Amino acid sequence: MDKSENKIGKVFKPVPYREVRITGGFWKAWQDVAAERTVPAVYRQFEQTGRFFALTHEWREGDPHKPHIFYDSDAAKWIEGAAYSLFFRPDAETERRIEALIDLIEAGMSAEGYFNSYYQTIEPHARWTRRENHELYCAGHLIEAATAYYEATGKRRFLDLMRRFAEYIRRTFAVERSAKFETPGHEEIELALVRLWQCTGERQWLELALRFVERRGKNPEEHCFGWFSPSYAQDQAPVAEQGTAEGHVVRFGYLFTAVADLARETGDMALLAACRRVWRDVCDRKLYVTGGVGNMKHGEAFGPAYFLPNFEAYTETCASIALAFFARRLLTIDPRGEYADIAELEFYNGALAGISLDGVGFFYENPLSFRPSDQTFLNAHRASGRPVRRVEVFDCSCCPPNILRMIASIGEWAYGVSEGGGPGQGGGEPPVLLVHHYLESTARLTFAGHMLTLRQETRYPWDGKVSLTIRVDGAESTGENGASVGAEGASAESTGGGAASTITCTIGLRAPGWCESPKVNYETVQKDGYLYITREWRDGDVILLDLPMEVTELEANPYVSQDAGRVALRRGPIVYCVEGADNGERLEDLLIPTNAADAGYEAVWDDDLLGGAVALRFSAARRKPFSALYRKWQPEYEQTRVTAIPYYAWGNREEGEMTVWIRKA
Amino acid sequence: MDKSENKIGKVFKPVPYREVRITGGFWKAWQDVAAERTVPAVYRQFEQTGRFFALTHEWREGDPHKPHIFYDSDAAKWIEGAAYSLFFRPDAETERRIEALIDLIEAGMSAEGYFNSYYQTIEPHARWTRRENHELYCAGHLIEAATAYYEATGKRRFLDLMRRFAEYIRRTFAVERSAKFETPGHEEIELALVRLWQCTGERQWLELALRFVERRGKNPEEHCFGWFSPSYAQDQAPVAEQGTAEGHVVRFGYLFTAVADLARETGDMALLAACRRVWRDVCDRKLYVTGGVGNMKHGEAFGPAYFLPNFEAYTETCASIALAFFARRLLTIDPRGEYADIAELEFYNGALAGISLDGVGFFYENPLSFRPSDQTFLNAHRASGRPVRRVEVFDCSCCPPNILRMIASIGEWAYGVSEGGGPGQGGGEPPVLLVHHYLESTARLTFAGHMLTLRQETRYPWDGKVSLTIRVDGAESTGENGASVGAEGASAESTGGGAASTITCTIGLRAPGWCESPKVNYETVQKDGYLYITREWRDGDVILLDLPMEVTELEANPYVSQDAGRVALRRGPIVYCVEGADNGERLEDLLIPTNAADAGYEAVWDDDLLGGAVALRFSAARRKPFSALYRKWQPEYEQTRVTAIPYYAWGNREEGEMTVWIRKA
Repeated sequence: MDKSENKIGKVFKPVPYREVRITGGFWKAWQDVAAERTVPAVYRQFEQTGRFFALTHEWREGDPHKPHIFYDSDAAKWIEGAAYSLFFRPDAETERRIEALIDLIEAGMSAEGYFNSYYQTIEPHARWTRRENHELYCAGHLIEAATAYYEATGKRRFLDLMRRFAEYIRRTFAVERSAKFETPGHEEIELALVRLWQCTGERQWLELALRFVERRGKNPEEHCFGWFSPSYAQDQAPVAEQGTAEGHVVRFGYLFTAVADLARETGDMALLAACRRVWRDVCDRKLYVTGGVGNMKHGEAFGPAYFLPNFEAYTETCASIALAFFARRLLTIDPRGEYADIAELEFYNGALAGISLDGVGFFYENPLSFRPSDQTFLNAHRASGRPVRRVEVFDCSCCPPNILRMIASIGEWAYGVSEGGGPGQGGGEPPVLLVHHYLESTARLTFAGHMLTLRQETRYPWDGKVSLTIRVDGAESTGENGASVGAEGASAESTGGGAASTITCTIGLRAPGWCESPKVNYETVQKDGYLYITREWRDGDVILLDLPMEVTELEANPYVSQDAGRVALRRGPIVYCVEGADNGERLEDLLIPTNAADAGYEAVWDDDLLGGAVALRFSAARRKPFSALYRKWQPEYEQTRVTAIPYYAWGNREEGEMTVWIRKA
Repeated sequence: MDKSENKIGKVFKPVPYREVRITGGFWKAWQDVAAERTVPAVYRQFEQTGRFFALTHEWREGDPHKPHIFYDSDAAKWIEGAAYSLFFRPDAETERRIEALIDLIEAGMSAEGYFNSYYQTIEPHARWTRRENHELYCAGHLIEAATAYYEATGKRRFLDLMRRFAEYIRRTFAVERSAKFETPGHEEIELALVRLWQCTGERQWLELALRFVERRGKNPEEHCFGWFSPSYAQDQAPVAEQGTAEGHVVRFGYLFTAVADLARETGDMALLAACRRVWRDVCDRKLYVTGGVGNMKHGEAFGPAYFLPNFEAYTETCASIALAFFARRLLTIDPRGEYADIAELEFYNGALAGISLDGVGFFYENPLSFRPSDQTFLNAHRASGRPVRRVEVFDCSCCPPNILRMIASIGEWAYGVSEGGGPGQGGGEPPVLLVHHYLESTARLTFAGHMLTLRQETRYPWDGKVSLTIRVDGAESTGENGASVGAEGASAESTGGGAASTITCTIGLRAPGWCESPKVNYETVQKDGYLYITREWRDGDVILLDLPMEVTELEANPYVSQDAGRVALRRGPIVYCVEGADNGERLEDLLIPTNAADAGYEAVWDDDLLGGAVALRFSAARRKPFSALYRKWQPEYEQTRVTAIPYYAWGNREEGEMTVWIRKA
């Protein structure tokens, strides 16, 4: 048993996104779309729906767009996502808009340091009385936005406003204990306070986050969601005692993101053990093959184990993002590839499906099977129905800015660094750099006393070949606010040679769980999903990693009744689906031949398909239509050549059927 | 094209249940259970839940069991079912109980002739103001109960009370038009008024029923179910213009039962055409293989065409019964076997599944797939959840007395008689006796100027051999109230021979749609699902019908995505399912071999199985369990010998999985 199972050893800090410039390929295209389309489009929608006007606190009865309890969080998440985007793509208009919003927040903040558009406008005397009303949730998102904006621009005003707000929260909840509740009804403040601590070094925020986590589940009177069970808001037991993933999935994900942070920072093994237990419950019993989580619309919640209906899947975009956050935090503690595997599953599938290829349309729910004519059923069961087409804004529009912030900060997920200790975490071992994700990029970081530049060249996720060029003691320093790194042309300059141009360290390359036989041009030690190379690296060394991408038919656990007799297709990190635009109707009836050779799988790059993608082509059969509703089994098949597309790209063409799980003979 | 397509020709009146004594076999056992267990058990439950106390109108605020708007209908349906049961199984205690309830109704009836426990007790000034509140629905069930009780016992008191009530309704809705609505929010009164007309010969009830039907869908202001669309209560269009089956399924079924009655009685071809259209829509696109109807819990409603989820099926017991009512009415107009096929499908499957083998437990919903651990999902989505086990009473307890009345009056479905005209409906042709259903019984009826006794001997539904013995000019007359027929020992006496002992008529035997090659010991003409024999029958003639029962694998239309790659098993009229008690877990994963020979189907009578039943045994495979949630497709199968049981008998043993649709290789 690795020591890391028993205590928290060295941690693997992420390299900030500001030090990882995405230079091309898949994520460069997405970041361009996010900057050029998503940032202004979400702004416009939020402006038109009164979310920004709400910040003025000038709304009055009779005006349109009554401020909702979660409006501040929408505004904050847009600021956060826009801030990430600004860093490498400065945009005066966006920065002006953010500043104008901060003006409103500054003007609206009370003398005590309180800010909440809903309460200050609608119910000024009800502050801190209704646990269910997202008050601390909004505060958390504002705090996240403030740290992001500070880190992107170096401007402190918003950060200082939020430090005041945080201090007021601390006084209210930790000193005076004057609020009517002890813990938030929707978690988020916890992880935000950890970020505020990381950003400012002010330890009181970490302690306040810990207080919110430690009090949760200990006071039965806290339960305020009468129509749900206490597990809806993870109130069913003290957090450290929780063993299964329960309740509202986004609440769950945000909570355990903070719990993992706190376990790492406090060394609380009980909290870490709870994280590991609930993680296993999600991954072994409650996770869709796309990375979707939350199989129940009711409560936007985890359902029973192994209950994964495809058409009815709720699988909110935000839930996938929240699970990826949790995974990233676990990866700072346990260098296990499975955490990065799940984050990757979300990047390319469950989360990314939530945004249209043009960056302006969104899905809140991400089903794994769809048929337009069945829409009535969902409309009937769900107040807002489920859009057949992606829409630009939702009444509850948490997902659009959430996917924006994921895309705009994707670089931050790529690396983890530990200043000493390898996989065994022993003392005296060389420092470790973990490469979690593969994406065309240039990272410049201070590591083991050196300036290190890592240049990744790859067509990932379409091709598994990755070239990593190591430059030691790069020419420029990377400032905290990164403005100098942000300039164009910072990639992989050559440096003067000589003795300074070597670095002794361990580089751990993630061997994705989907890859059966990764190859590297150095000798490696494989452990827990990483290939470790320890050596004295010279400036200019190039690691060549090859992760062969095969078309893989996946089966689900036999206890997942909905997927019995079906396979999902995966190639590399991409999960595929079949869609009506390519394949017509009756897609749930498609039948893949027993032998893969008969299916004749081809993976074909197509520049013109959905913005450029690898499609899968294969042979399958489906029954010919007949008129009776039931008849004696006498299947008559028509053969067809099927085109499968990446799941994330579904719903970008004409309305039609879609399915991920396909019958397998 | 048959003339019957263009106009309504001769009608085929059902032979009253009182003239069809069930003498043994499947339905005798069920009627015994109904009389001995269900009648007292439902009475006790309704008594304990205040449904009978409500009739006193003495409930006061603070008392338990506040009268609900539908309580009168529950009481009425119990009276109706108990009345049917009383006819062949006199029971002084049951009759005393009914009389006591009638005492309450008599005492509570207002001077105008109004009776409604909810309105008279709770909202005395709101009479006839709220279309949605089941006022006419309750009246309809009381009227049905009164006709049933009169016909079973000859006692007129209840009938006369309800004639007063009906007259008050007529005055209110057809003369003064003083109610706040024109048509009921829940149909039922229409079919009840037709029955009242049939029972009394008073034509004003038929006309009032016609008025309710004709006004429906013509006044948009009638729509009162804000949370549903107008189609919820079949208000989307005038009834004669409706073309698809929409909305609340029980409402739909009760409405079109009356519409078919009215089309027959008035010759209104537009109403008949609407009946035929909506019937086709149900049978071709919206019917579960078990006979279940109503795939949406929301609105207890028809969903989209071909959308037939098995686990989520709502398929209320009452909806199956209502569809059977509609089928029976259509059969009086069009002698087409498909109508009797659907009624039969309900008797043995969709409806019968709603009652436990011991007659005291009930299902409201009848899913086609179930797994106990997934219960949470349904509980979350449905206010009342879905019981894993059958329960004795529901908050809305319409189903228990409904299935009681179906079982207790099952004999009434067996025959249809027309005094002239065969399948071509031409004049001068011999009278026709249609045998719709096969059940061990003795029918004594006046037909074509003769007393005719028909003795059916059969082990149906377990065996398809039926012997029908014809006795002409039987010894006893059959009185209207049937008391003399009700005595024991009335079966198939021999009569004196001679010239009087022949009868020339056509006998039409239904050839069930499930039977590929029916055999009869007479020459027959086959048309629309009936085998017609026209001859001079002699006393003592015996028709031997053989309906070979094969185990049949059924496939669903390829547009039913939920059943793709699966088969349902049927033998004779019985649809089968596999259940955990016999087969363990992972039943959705069971895989039947491609060749039926490899499956090795056996149909085995088992005295000890579920009260005696034919079980199906066959070989199948299922994947062995593994721990991962997803893995590369590498199925490892375990072979198993499966036992399938009749669907109606599921949920009578320990809790476990169940499925109707099984994977087929």
